[in-house]
Amino acid sequence: MKEKIKKFDVLKINGKNTDRIQDTIVREFALTLFLNTHEVTTLICTPSNLEYLAAGYLFSEGLIKEKNHIKDIYIDLKEGLARVITWKDDLVKSNIYPKTLITPKADRILSLPNDINIEKKPPIKTNITIEKDEIYSLMDKFDLSPQIFMSTGGTHSAALCDKKDLLLFREDIGRHNAIDKIFGECILRDIQTDDRILITSGRVSSQTLNKVSKTNLPFLISKSAPTDLGIEISKQAGITLIGFVRGRRMNIYTHDWRVIT
Amino acid sequence: MKEKIKKFDVLKINGKNTDRIQDTIVREFALTLFLNTHEVTTLICTPSNLEYLAAGYLFSEGLIKEKNHIKDIYIDLKEGLARVITWKDDLVKSNIYPKTLITPKADRILSLPNDINIEKKPPIKTNITIEKDEIYSLMDKFDLSPQIFMSTGGTHSAALCDKKDLLLFREDIGRHNAIDKIFGECILRDIQTDDRILITSGRVSSQTLNKVSKTNLPFLISKSAPTDLGIEISKQAGITLIGFVRGRRMNIYTHDWRVIT
Repeated sequence: MKEKIKKFDVLKINGKNTDRIQDTIVREFALTLFLNTHEVTTLICTPSNLEYLAAGYLFSEGLIKEKNHIKDIYIDLKEGLARVITWKDDLVKSNIYPKTLITPKADRILSLPNDINIEKKPPIKTNITIEKDEIYSLMDKFDLSPQIFMSTGGTHSAALCDKKDLLLFREDIGRHNAIDKIFGECILRDIQTDDRILITSGRVSSQTLNKVSKTNLPFLISKSAPTDLGIEISKQAGITLIGFVRGRRMNIYTHDWRVIT
Repeated sequence: MKEKIKKFDVLKINGKNTDRIQDTIVREFALTLFLNTHEVTTLICTPSNLEYLAAGYLFSEGLIKEKNHIKDIYIDLKEGLARVITWKDDLVKSNIYPKTLITPKADRILSLPNDINIEKKPPIKTNITIEKDEIYSLMDKFDLSPQIFMSTGGTHSAALCDKKDLLLFREDIGRHNAIDKIFGECILRDIQTDDRILITSGRVSSQTLNKVSKTNLPFLISKSAPTDLGIEISKQAGITLIGFVRGRRMNIYTHDWRVIT
């Protein structure tokens, strides 16, 4: 296992005090991801749960659809490589240049905005609702969860929740990696996402929504701001998008009928 | 000119109050960057100062070295394209797969970590120093500058400073884009960076340092956390790296002799 943190000598200044101390710093790691023989991307990430990250990235970018497609996952920590082997290579070949790309050459930059071109699947239609106090309670638990962040201040987090509790919680230096780790864990451990909630510490962009809209999650909740396309895609995909959940405040951008105020 | 913000209807909850209001949201834009006939990358960005962004990205990724190499820059806002034309194409061809890459195929993900393989140039040796109070004063001015952020909460900022004042200030939804806009402006407007200071709102990773180490800036100051490789590269490159500058506190990670406490 790679270490997720490392100690460094730091000169800390606090008002009139100057102290040389050992501080905990978050590590970064480059993971080059292969789908069978195709090199897909290189993720700059926190070196933990890399199987989940690899499977989750391929799922959220539309390159694999379900666990049954996966034959094996190899992680080479020394070389910084992940290889996901599928039962059929032709299953994924047609998806490796998905429709969202500007040119076929841009195979490494997936989920591009400017046009809203999420996969044409019907919008999420579940009638589930949530109380605003349930949202505050989930965010309070989310804020108490980060382990790497608390010691380094350098990571993002994501969590899968039901209305009462956090079910999965993952951290990464990349905000999309934290989400992909959640999605990968859901796939590989057969955890369903119907009527559940995703919380992210990070901003919500078209890239975030292109990932989340591969699932059937009706709620996306963020501590931070959305972009215009994040809102537009949420609206089309039938996702209730909530941002700036801080203290006893929140902004509901789309499908606010699912929140009981 | 593309708008940088857009209005949306938002349900705002604040304690017991629930109001439907118009809120200002930051826009995102995909800019596909060509260097002559080579497609280099697609940047998800804020649509402002795109000439600076294009030139700055190519500079900070080592694909162009100086203004004199650039013959022309075309921006097509409708198609989301930037094309930088150089006088000689062979000038850049040898750099388009720089040494930092894991494989020649990974031409879209530049500045990869795992190894510290910045261009072998001598470390920055300037004897310039700065008072800690000058750092606080610069950060106070930096915090008062953001224009898009103040209305949307959705952008990162970067600034070029001397010891007394902010000289350039740019914002973008991407933290590296904000830095590249500064570097592009320096190149295109012949603004020198010797003995000057870069402030960023964002985290400092190997990618940040691989960009900054293309300049001769001796100071990199962040409101946020560094990664392990951000610190390692700063040390090797002779850069004074300062993080978590908040209120009257800061952490100095490398070459702290340049800060007079």
